[in-house]
Amino acid sequence: MTLRLCCAWIFILLIPSLSDGGKLLVVPMDGSHWLSMKPVVEKLTERGHEVVVVAPEVSWQVGKTEAYTVKTYPVSYTVEDLDNNFRDYLAVHLKDLPFPLNTLAMYNSSVHAFHIFLAQCKDLFRNKETLQYLNQSGFDAVLTDPILMCGATISKYLALPSVFFMRGFPCNLHYEAAQCPSPLSYAPRLFTFNSDRMTFFQRVENALVSLLEPVYCYGFYKEALAFSSEVLQRDVSLLDMFNSASIWLLRYDFVFEYVRPVMPNMVFIGGINCAEKKPLPKEFEAIVNASGEHGIVVFSLGSMVSEIPMKKAEEIADALGSVPQTVLWRYVGKSPHNLPKNVKLVKWLPQNDLLAHPKTRAFITHGGSHGIYEGICNAVPMVLMPLFGDQMDNAKQIESRGAGLTLNILEMTSQDISTALKAVINDKKYKENIKRLSELHLDRPIHPLDLAVHWVEFVMKHKGAPHLRPAAHDLNWIQYHSLDVIAFLLAVVLLSLFISLKCCLFCCRRCCSKKGRARKPTKAKSH
Amino acid sequence: MTLRLCCAWIFILLIPSLSDGGKLLVVPMDGSHWLSMKPVVEKLTERGHEVVVVAPEVSWQVGKTEAYTVKTYPVSYTVEDLDNNFRDYLAVHLKDLPFPLNTLAMYNSSVHAFHIFLAQCKDLFRNKETLQYLNQSGFDAVLTDPILMCGATISKYLALPSVFFMRGFPCNLHYEAAQCPSPLSYAPRLFTFNSDRMTFFQRVENALVSLLEPVYCYGFYKEALAFSSEVLQRDVSLLDMFNSASIWLLRYDFVFEYVRPVMPNMVFIGGINCAEKKPLPKEFEAIVNASGEHGIVVFSLGSMVSEIPMKKAEEIADALGSVPQTVLWRYVGKSPHNLPKNVKLVKWLPQNDLLAHPKTRAFITHGGSHGIYEGICNAVPMVLMPLFGDQMDNAKQIESRGAGLTLNILEMTSQDISTALKAVINDKKYKENIKRLSELHLDRPIHPLDLAVHWVEFVMKHKGAPHLRPAAHDLNWIQYHSLDVIAFLLAVVLLSLFISLKCCLFCCRRCCSKKGRARKPTKAKSH
Repeated sequence: MTLRLCCAWIFILLIPSLSDGGKLLVVPMDGSHWLSMKPVVEKLTERGHEVVVVAPEVSWQVGKTEAYTVKTYPVSYTVEDLDNNFRDYLAVHLKDLPFPLNTLAMYNSSVHAFHIFLAQCKDLFRNKETLQYLNQSGFDAVLTDPILMCGATISKYLALPSVFFMRGFPCNLHYEAAQCPSPLSYAPRLFTFNSDRMTFFQRVENALVSLLEPVYCYGFYKEALAFSSEVLQRDVSLLDMFNSASIWLLRYDFVFEYVRPVMPNMVFIGGINCAEKKPLPKEFEAIVNASGEHGIVVFSLGSMVSEIPMKKAEEIADALGSVPQTVLWRYVGKSPHNLPKNVKLVKWLPQNDLLAHPKTRAFITHGGSHGIYEGICNAVPMVLMPLFGDQMDNAKQIESRGAGLTLNILEMTSQDISTALKAVINDKKYKENIKRLSELHLDRPIHPLDLAVHWVEFVMKHKGAPHLRPAAHDLNWIQYHSLDVIAFLLAVVLLSLFISLKCCLFCCRRCCSKKGRARKPTKAKSH
Repeated sequence: MTLRLCCAWIFILLIPSLSDGGKLLVVPMDGSHWLSMKPVVEKLTERGHEVVVVAPEVSWQVGKTEAYTVKTYPVSYTVEDLDNNFRDYLAVHLKDLPFPLNTLAMYNSSVHAFHIFLAQCKDLFRNKETLQYLNQSGFDAVLTDPILMCGATISKYLALPSVFFMRGFPCNLHYEAAQCPSPLSYAPRLFTFNSDRMTFFQRVENALVSLLEPVYCYGFYKEALAFSSEVLQRDVSLLDMFNSASIWLLRYDFVFEYVRPVMPNMVFIGGINCAEKKPLPKEFEAIVNASGEHGIVVFSLGSMVSEIPMKKAEEIADALGSVPQTVLWRYVGKSPHNLPKNVKLVKWLPQNDLLAHPKTRAFITHGGSHGIYEGICNAVPMVLMPLFGDQMDNAKQIESRGAGLTLNILEMTSQDISTALKAVINDKKYKENIKRLSELHLDRPIHPLDLAVHWVEFVMKHKGAPHLRPAAHDLNWIQYHSLDVIAFLLAVVLLSLFISLKCCLFCCRRCCSKKGRARKPTKAKSH
């Protein structure tokens, strides 16, 4: 009897979970992008949803867990191809070329690096078994990092509502596709390194960059667009591909990002990657404890960059020797010959747990958004050495908040690094500023992970979020900017003026002619 | 020993509450506006903050509880003056005047009604004891409904950060002051009754109304501005008064409001007034149970409107007799002689609890935002009889969502009311639409009350939210719209064109003159 009751109780408890459980397709982006999406996928699985991550057989990060289902498909490249592709991409960013050659080289390297991911998407759509599986699985929604367009193409191909999870497109597409105004006067464009407080010529630069954006973004996505058009059997534009997102989960927090207009279907989950502090592994605990009153400095150029040219490494090593702190440097390449005693090279480090340690005095980072949010969450002032992508803009944002100092990795000398590091460690204002940012960031009504999970579940449950879609999507450019209304009102005003003028002239003429006629007889009389 | 431990434990539990507790000044708006702010004030008090509501000795709603401290000040009017003032205001809205006389009459009545509230503010600043109390109390922040400007003036006078709690200003000031773009092409202005999907001429109307807004808003606030300038001892503009809000707690939810751009310091707490369902008082329970299979209709024109002209009341009574439902009508005036048997007049009704009852088939409402959100929360289709203020726009919004029907209270006949009521009760689409709105509205990551409380506490704790203030506040109109940048770029383009043209002409001239010289000798030879 007790067993029966117990079973009945379990059954009752299970019903809501099963009836609420949905089926989610995840189309991720490999590399560091996956790091913040992974906890969302794991939590959704934990909450009883059937979550399937569709991933290439060859990848850096995706698929190395059993916490969720991974559906792989064969690809036409190897992991060495992936590594070489990224190495070539990085190498261009470490070459000291003059402007505009550097910009052109970086742009070309981005387009080239993109090719391998496009090939991945083509491989997916070529694989009949995967396609059949996707078509027959009856998913409720797609969760994707849309930067490579493959997830957006799949969601359109399967006619499923989508949730976009990302930091942003390089050319403001996440705002444009969401119909969100971006005032050029205080919303700086990516790659300008401007803040939200711009001089006149910075605003001119911002306007020029915004004019160039459609050109370079189209160049970047040209082939991907052609492929999506082929898959969807109709011509699609960039905006077509991205304007159907039900919810934009943006890894933003305005303690770090510049304040600007947003849209109601944008949900801000910046800091989602900040994990709870876990105890340090023994070997790291020992190093930290041995660091004495000076504490430690954490140094990592991110999960993707393991080594840098030897000359740079030597310069950095030289500078690190000038501080009394113990420096934990994540570095896979050959050890610099001048490595000082206070620097420990490690192949991997528990970054968040080290940053959370009270003995950590500074964080030397490449300025990737994940690392920056970990720095903010744990209130550690930063020295930033941006390498590629949005990193220079991120670094400038932290600098503009007074919470760190930025170095140009191509031009920095050993002295520059040493000065910057000493400043963020010893000048109290950096610690105070990052502490304030941290307090503001962590004082939130709901954790970003719960927020992200809520909105993915919302889209799965309600088959999208059409009530958050602005009517602006149904307007053309002229209507959106009210140019037709302005033209009409101007025409009315001008016509009214013209008619009034004509009436006045007519009246004047009548008066004059009357006067004239009235005078003529007088004249005649006077004659 | 046990008692000691217990006391120590209580003490430990109390410490965070006391140390976290702040001091909040609340400057409310009387009438229905207070209904949704009250739970926030109560919850903040519950959470250990010292909350002081500063209110006039004479008021409709504020101060009738012991859940928080009320600091009253004497005023120069009586409650009868308040009642008469509102009665005059309402009477104008029930007069059937032709356009534009009706608009002018309504505008004048609003300005007139505003005077008594301005007098209230003047009484506050005249009362030395109250002023001294405010100056010496060391508040952390001000929570206010800013529509009457008194709360904004006090927060500026005391140099305190402020949280604005409201539905919105009549002339888009809540967007303008927050530097939020309002595209005229799909963000309809109040009093146009347009939706976000407008025809060309509706967009023209929207543009014209937006041009008129500064005029009528200035007229409305002229005297209040002069008074604020006197108090603050400097000339202040409307935007000066409202652009310093740290957080805008807007009673918005996009299942009901039209989707449009917003700002990061806007927090949406629509539906905050929907209380949890409580059991019905016995007399109402009996009426509802006796209604049989047909159920009931809830009818209220809001907490402010207790009676309407007898002719209207008779028309309505006549229509209510045409449905088989029992109608619970909140009505204080003289009973219409033709009151049908199925209609029960009551002086007060538990609106939310009645709407939450499964036997409720429809809700006849004036379209105040509180009632509408209760209708949405409880998924009851509505017949809307808007009277004044934003009610017509609210009603049109519900109608555009297919969740109700709007009647013009001046023109409606008994037949119109009957047809509309029967439609929302019997046509399933209204129930389905409001059910969908309700599901979307209630599927939120955090309750609006908790969200409001969080952000008030945030502002108290961090002395504002300067990280959410856009840099646009530091730009003038020309800079904000990049007009200087456009002029500069145009000048550069024109100058470049001019120089290119001059160069071309110069080259052409040189070529021609060379040819001319080359030809001349030939000509000479031929001669």
